Amino acid sequence: MQQIEFIKGHGTENDFVIVPDLDGELDLTPAEVAAICDRRAGIGADGVLRVVASQHVPDWDGPDDLWFMDYHNADGSVSEMCGNGVRVFAHFLIERGLATGPVIDIATRDGLKPTEVLADGRYRVNMGPIEVDDDPVAVQVGGLGSEISAFPADVGNPHAVAFVDDLDVLELFHAPTWAPADRFPAGVNIEFIKPVGPRHIAMRVFERGSGETRSCGTGTCAAAAVAARRAGESTFPISYRVDVPGGTVEVELQERQSYLTGPAEIVAEGTFRLA
Amino acid sequence: MQQIEFIKGHGTENDFVIVPDLDGELDLTPAEVAAICDRRAGIGADGVLRVVASQHVPDWDGPDDLWFMDYHNADGSVSEMCGNGVRVFAHFLIERGLATGPVIDIATRDGLKPTEVLADGRYRVNMGPIEVDDDPVAVQVGGLGSEISAFPADVGNPHAVAFVDDLDVLELFHAPTWAPADRFPAGVNIEFIKPVGPRHIAMRVFERGSGETRSCGTGTCAAAAVAARRAGESTFPISYRVDVPGGTVEVELQERQSYLTGPAEIVAEGTFRLA
Repeated sequence: MQQIEFIKGHGTENDFVIVPDLDGELDLTPAEVAAICDRRAGIGADGVLRVVASQHVPDWDGPDDLWFMDYHNADGSVSEMCGNGVRVFAHFLIERGLATGPVIDIATRDGLKPTEVLADGRYRVNMGPIEVDDDPVAVQVGGLGSEISAFPADVGNPHAVAFVDDLDVLELFHAPTWAPADRFPAGVNIEFIKPVGPRHIAMRVFERGSGETRSCGTGTCAAAAVAARRAGESTFPISYRVDVPGGTVEVELQERQSYLTGPAEIVAEGTFRLA
Repeated sequence: MQQIEFIKGHGTENDFVIVPDLDGELDLTPAEVAAICDRRAGIGADGVLRVVASQHVPDWDGPDDLWFMDYHNADGSVSEMCGNGVRVFAHFLIERGLATGPVIDIATRDGLKPTEVLADGRYRVNMGPIEVDDDPVAVQVGGLGSEISAFPADVGNPHAVAFVDDLDVLELFHAPTWAPADRFPAGVNIEFIKPVGPRHIAMRVFERGSGETRSCGTGTCAAAAVAARRAGESTFPISYRVDVPGGTVEVELQERQSYLTGPAEIVAEGTFRLA
């Protein structure tokens, strides 16, 4: 039996198992990632963040003195980026003394993600440009009588954002559907948002492949960008507060960039027994 | 910040955080238990098993040289017993060298639970008598067109067991309802069972206060007892195999006693940060 070191943390309750593998000696299989993330038979998490020196990542062609965030979804598949995960990753680097602020350049499959350590303990991540589409899709979801419009937004991954009057009535244990169905051939993450105040929204999210989650970093960025567009905002930068079931984040929208600011926590650490 | 030692394990994917507190110095509050069991912001589990010497348990009036299983539900409330938990508890004691087989007397709020360590690594727990009631209630559950009969069975806690033709169609993200409603004023755990072969059933369970779980130890005992009664079994002991979503257990029915045999696994250990 092989034992591996792990750390468990979360960002607005989007939770991760961090696996330090600084010298790139650990070859986690998809089955092992799924076993770690299994919430009953494993530790349980939305994904695994393997920490490895960028010089040991064959596909990385940037600087070789960075830490690479090797992100895996709970089902064992690989993903480019995770807006909440990168904050937890940065928090781990700071705690271990593997990096110092105020800005940590984190290597990901989606490129370099400069992450700022704020004085209040939060982390601010450059999430890149967001493309909002003004041509809505029609979304059907349990708990609402009729279909509603959702505006597509691309944050590196696909989203569709719908306005609702009441978040509590949504039955998100069933996947929402959209029409035309061929608009998102690879699926889409769907955000439901409700205005709370000026540049302040509440949100619930259904993530493709995961179901409803407590938070989705790129989803909060998509939600803020669509809310700003529908409100006719034209002078940037502006900042939105987004309340998700797992906490609160802040999304700053610039002309061509977006920044996600939020908390990161580490709650446990130890060893996991690989079968 | 206080750090506490923890071990995570499961029995047929009914999962637990074990907290060793041998000298009874840890005063876990309901909020702390809930924080530990939170699947996103904590470690995540169906419950906490605090391990404490029986001499340090004021309410225990049995022998003072045993290990007491101080069981807490995920919401922080206290429970008497947990059939899957006691196996994981015993497995922890064996691994740590705190007890030796072949029989470990485990102290619980429901009294002494003699637990046998089998040669194949499984654990066999005396679950006490089961009272089956031949007067059914009418259960309504999502995915079935009409209501079905469920037979009450008491295993120290209340159960009702219904036969279905197809377990896959059941929509257990909504709680089933029963009539007459006043039959179970404190709620009931509902098992849905499907015959698989001779003395072999498959089961899904909806636990009061928890929703659908991967396994319920007392539920498998109730299911086997009702299946035996409906099959007209009259010569004991007999043994039922019960397949649950999280694995397989064996229930042995005697005239006035029942025994639950199943696996126990430990998957991780470390420290948890109490807020």
